[in-house]
Amino acid sequence: MESDRPRPIGRGAKVRTAVHAATLAELVDKGYAALSVENVAQRAGVHKTTVYRRWKDRESLLTDALTEHVATDIPIPDTGAIETDLRALARSLVQSFTSPAGQAILAAMFTGAAHLPEIASARRHVFHDRLTRATPVVTRAVERGELPSGTDPAELLKTLAAPIYLRLLITAEPIDEETADRTVRITLAAARSGALRPPQTP
Amino acid sequence: MESDRPRPIGRGAKVRTAVHAATLAELVDKGYAALSVENVAQRAGVHKTTVYRRWKDRESLLTDALTEHVATDIPIPDTGAIETDLRALARSLVQSFTSPAGQAILAAMFTGAAHLPEIASARRHVFHDRLTRATPVVTRAVERGELPSGTDPAELLKTLAAPIYLRLLITAEPIDEETADRTVRITLAAARSGALRPPQTP
Repeated sequence: MESDRPRPIGRGAKVRTAVHAATLAELVDKGYAALSVENVAQRAGVHKTTVYRRWKDRESLLTDALTEHVATDIPIPDTGAIETDLRALARSLVQSFTSPAGQAILAAMFTGAAHLPEIASARRHVFHDRLTRATPVVTRAVERGELPSGTDPAELLKTLAAPIYLRLLITAEPIDEETADRTVRITLAAARSGALRPPQTP
Repeated sequence: MESDRPRPIGRGAKVRTAVHAATLAELVDKGYAALSVENVAQRAGVHKTTVYRRWKDRESLLTDALTEHVATDIPIPDTGAIETDLRALARSLVQSFTSPAGQAILAAMFTGAAHLPEIASARRHVFHDRLTRATPVVTRAVERGELPSGTDPAELLKTLAAPIYLRLLITAEPIDEETADRTVRITLAAARSGALRPPQTP
């Protein structure tokens, strides 16, 4: 058992990072059903009471690890042109979902742990974080005059992501670079036609 | 207990319809977790052995009832113009998902029963059936010269449905007629630009 005395700043962050990494590694190797605080603690090289001090159960640990991971796994491009920016973004999304970690995360979020309210909330937050981080891609394109003024960044980014999620969650079709490039063509056509401005815009 | 003698044709279909209706009614009233063959049989006015003779467990009963229900709940419009056809289709989809039955079905398919392989398969089949039934909407528009020759009906219909599913399954935003009308504008802009033809089409 560890004492409850305050620890120097830095150690907490290191434990947190190690436990998050161990959680994802366990998820990838063994799946959601077999995920346990004991195994995560062992893999992270910490005592399980250290884990329980920060996370009340495996569900909150999982939600926290997933949120942190997916909030930062898609780099935000700045190539100077909307078409190449969107292509990089859509391809990163496809790559993230088709990686072993991405597959394990999807399986946990949409199958094994889909019944947990925390997971539904994590799905919303993760998506919202990604939208917020990618918003400059759209605002820069509007400033450069590549897209109609008033184009709604959130609508554009949802249009970009929607066909990828449909394939992942409904049709179970494979997704690849062509899936990414096609959703870019669809999204750009919609944006240039003005369909991605708020409805009240003339 | 009922005997195993053959029964006149017609009775089986009636039992099937009654049991499907009872399954959906139980799902709407009580949710997936509380769904039981006993309750379904009682509601349908049949003995539970009658149910077990046709369906091996509540999962196969549920999958069968859902597949039958959602394969026919969206009427296929033929208004003579692609814009009004797609608007009717998208609005029907939104209405279906926002009805009490639609909400209960979504909760079962994507939350309560999401871990069942039969349900993943049912999601694919249901979507594929809807696509197939709606395909004439697109082929007629191409024949009328409203959309570019070579427009892929499946791609168009997936583009139409994707933003609705994204809101239902990821962002948890409300969906309404404006959601439907917006995805029609996006889809038409993409189709008219040629982005919904197969990639090899020049």
